[in-house]
Amino acid sequence: MMRNMDLNADLGESWGAWTMGHDAEMLDIVTSANVACGFHAGDPLVMHRTLTLAKEKGVGVGAHPGYMDLWGFGRRRFADDDPAEIEKLLIYQIGAIQAMARAVGVPVTHFKAHGALANVTAVDAAMADAAARAVLATDPGMLFLAMPGTEQERAAQRAGLRVAREVFADRAYMADGTLAPRSRPGAVLQDAGEAAARMVRMVSEGRVATLDGPEIALEFDTICVHGDNPHAVAMARAVRAALTDAGIRLQPMAG
Amino acid sequence: MMRNMDLNADLGESWGAWTMGHDAEMLDIVTSANVACGFHAGDPLVMHRTLTLAKEKGVGVGAHPGYMDLWGFGRRRFADDDPAEIEKLLIYQIGAIQAMARAVGVPVTHFKAHGALANVTAVDAAMADAAARAVLATDPGMLFLAMPGTEQERAAQRAGLRVAREVFADRAYMADGTLAPRSRPGAVLQDAGEAAARMVRMVSEGRVATLDGPEIALEFDTICVHGDNPHAVAMARAVRAALTDAGIRLQPMAG
Amino acid sequence: MMRNMDLNADLGESWGAWTMGHDAEMLDIVTSANVACGFHAGDPLVMHRTLTLAKEKGVGVGAHPGYMDLWGFGRRRFADDDPAEIEKLLIYQIGAIQAMARAVGVPVTHFKAHGALANVTAVDAAMADAAARAVLATDPGMLFLAMPGTEQERAAQRAGLRVAREVFADRAYMADGTLAPRSRPGAVLQDAGEAAARMVRMVSEGRVATLDGPEIALEFDTICVHGDNPHAVAMARAVRAALTDAGIRLQPMAG
Amino acid sequence: MMRNMDLNADLGESWGAWTMGHDAEMLDIVTSANVACGFHAGDPLVMHRTLTLAKEKGVGVGAHPGYMDLWGFGRRRFADDDPAEIEKLLIYQIGAIQAMARAVGVPVTHFKAHGALANVTAVDAAMADAAARAVLATDPGMLFLAMPGTEQERAAQRAGLRVAREVFADRAYMADGTLAPRSRPGAVLQDAGEAAARMVRMVSEGRVATLDGPEIALEFDTICVHGDNPHAVAMARAVRAALTDAGIRLQPMAG
Repeated sequence: MMRNMDLNADLGESWGAWTMGHDAEMLDIVTSANVACGFHAGDPLVMHRTLTLAKEKGVGVGAHPGYMDLWGFGRRRFADDDPAEIEKLLIYQIGAIQAMARAVGVPVTHFKAHGALANVTAVDAAMADAAARAVLATDPGMLFLAMPGTEQERAAQRAGLRVAREVFADRAYMADGTLAPRSRPGAVLQDAGEAAARMVRMVSEGRVATLDGPEIALEFDTICVHGDNPHAVAMARAVRAALTDAGIRLQPMAG
Repeated sequence: MMRNMDLNADLGESWGAWTMGHDAEMLDIVTSANVACGFHAGDPLVMHRTLTLAKEKGVGVGAHPGYMDLWGFGRRRFADDDPAEIEKLLIYQIGAIQAMARAVGVPVTHFKAHGALANVTAVDAAMADAAARAVLATDPGMLFLAMPGTEQERAAQRAGLRVAREVFADRAYMADGTLAPRSRPGAVLQDAGEAAARMVRMVSEGRVATLDGPEIALEFDTICVHGDNPHAVAMARAVRAALTDAGIRLQPMAG
Repeated sequence: MMRNMDLNADLGESWGAWTMGHDAEMLDIVTSANVACGFHAGDPLVMHRTLTLAKEKGVGVGAHPGYMDLWGFGRRRFADDDPAEIEKLLIYQIGAIQAMARAVGVPVTHFKAHGALANVTAVDAAMADAAARAVLATDPGMLFLAMPGTEQERAAQRAGLRVAREVFADRAYMADGTLAPRSRPGAVLQDAGEAAARMVRMVSEGRVATLDGPEIALEFDTICVHGDNPHAVAMARAVRAALTDAGIRLQPMAG
Repeated sequence: MMRNMDLNADLGESWGAWTMGHDAEMLDIVTSANVACGFHAGDPLVMHRTLTLAKEKGVGVGAHPGYMDLWGFGRRRFADDDPAEIEKLLIYQIGAIQAMARAVGVPVTHFKAHGALANVTAVDAAMADAAARAVLATDPGMLFLAMPGTEQERAAQRAGLRVAREVFADRAYMADGTLAPRSRPGAVLQDAGEAAARMVRMVSEGRVATLDGPEIALEFDTICVHGDNPHAVAMARAVRAALTDAGIRLQPMAG
């Protein structure tokens, strides 16, 4: 029996005169694109360009909103977040990309929080609920990307949203199913072949070795790859090739 | 027979820690609110607050987008506008306010360009067409506010959009039906009573005196008033009272 | 023997089309102005206007820089500050206001951190040291405003900077000399007369009642008042009048 | 007798998470760096990094300020510029980079307007005068970069500033000494060897062929090269090599 899998990447992160990422190449590799919505990256022209290209390539599209923090690229954590405020920042950004996608003629089928907002919603239930409410308010049919076992997953379940569980091609895991912290040796994989082989086994057998214990079972729906530098693009390409060679069919997470 | 008329004002122009305008008072005076969409004013929290208050007061809501120029408050004209770019800036902003309004539970029923974008679309057919395309792409049912006789009106007609023709309570007119330039003596009315009396006659008889010739006929659907200072609020209140006293029924332009 | 005292306020916090604060009135009340430097408020035109007015009124001028966070008005705390980065943000802003003040013909004689940066430098030695280094790099002759007993004071001492200790006209104190937290009943004084009387005693006798114990001795060089709303302006005016009536001479902290 | 010449490039145009240009390579090629000052590009961290690297390489440093237009990268022209406002935007930016350069320990020895501001000051005397006033207010010892025969040059002369006349390695000239408009065939040189050979002749003989007439005499002090893409870097390297091979000594324009 053939398995399906989705490859996703953060794209559309250029802004104004600044280019970021190898979007054109990545859109030949991934099956889903998380498109920045203007607050941490991705102005309206970049969004239009990215959505148009994704449509041409048959790549699924998701909203990828972040904090209102252009200079920090949405990576800075604020010490005192107000979930009610975040909810509105997300509604605004999701609405903006929905309209742009409608103009381009491509549906927005998933939601993935960016940067610090992803980190916060993973561990803070109130913030994760705020994100879920924003999705409910804009399109309850969207898939809600969640790292397995995090508050993201629980918030989506509470809200009755469909969850797409996400793993990272270049990150190691702990025995409790969480991502190994970047500070830990071995937490970030550098070798494309190793990442690719590991992903094949994770998809085929649903199991992954851990840094601090025995291997564990890990169910997931999509694999995040990166495209911000040539090395990352090569790893993404290797992961795709290995999955395809193993008879795994790549298709957008939203089907 | 009772006439209907709409009073509109630009609202929701606060941003971050900065307050602008007397929105709460104005929402008791006007029947339609043009709500800023984030690029020249009006962050997501301000938008949510303004839309919520408009809904409570039964005031109609319109998208009021502008140039991406926060510092210039959307009032600076760019020497070389690209209509294809403007179209995308507008789609983004309209989509954002549509989503926020949906979350609040109030429909967005009209479109009005802000500041320099209003001036440009009045005289530049390509820019006016870009604005019309943005409305078509986001909601072709929206009313398109146009100064009578401008490229705005013609672009809306070309696009098959419904037009709401707009006059200004505090501005004088020329014999060709255009606004008198601000530099011309008498172009801007300061007296609330004079503005109110003039508006009653314009609504009742469809005629207005001009600065450079005989009075003319002028058909319109909505009157723009201002709320950015106490004097403007007083004029808006006087216009409303005079219209009501004259038996004119005030109701949102979108009905 | 006549005592001297300085009254300071945060001014020049308008930005673009948005006005904040009653600067013209406040410049008749205070003897030192903390002028925003563009990152959280205060664009170059506002800075020029504020500095020009301060010069005309004989009010001393200080740099009042903050985080690069316009939307948050510099009040949002970031969870992971990098002192080396903050130092550069401060050097940039201080340099900008020094040049503008030189063009206007008024010296910049003190430094006061704004908002979240003030809170952070009060409790975090590394951040306070970064602020002190920025002052050393731009003008070691500037007075470094510090809340008594905080890391600000210690950092300035380590750097060999002259300190101006600051109290707040509207805030109560704890027995350990720190500001009472805003959440505590009585922490923020609302009554102008009470604030004024308390300030006279603090200046004359160097003593203040505390919320959680006996009165304490508190030495200081400048009193912070606010000017962002009419009530605050009235309190500032009352404090000034009471101090003057008590024979205390008001003059810029930098002499 | 050995001739001296300066090669300059716009550097430090990264911002936040976005990288632009090949600064490290270019700092091995040019003798002067025009460093962006934060309004169109170049945040305080980028400025500090760029200035530090320029100092290490012995490259001269200039202020390279632009319009307050980050999204447009300072390339958008505003229809109604106010020289008095521009002057203040420039003073702010120059002051900021002066302070940062002082902290790094490198002097700021020239001024060059960026993008649309360069184009405007070339043709508009009032705007050019505003730029000259900003330089006078911040450091009258700075060299004022000017395209020969433009309002920039005349404004600097009126202000008593020292002028450094600038030509472009990749641009053709007209018989009246002005730059050929980009729309004209042959206006922009693509071939590195051709550009290099032309520059050698221009430096050695002070003469250049024109697109619309006979060759002309053109005196200048610095040659602008670009570093925003690998092709441009290669051309810059070729120009440097050809000048060096021809016995021309490359050194910072400010000596």
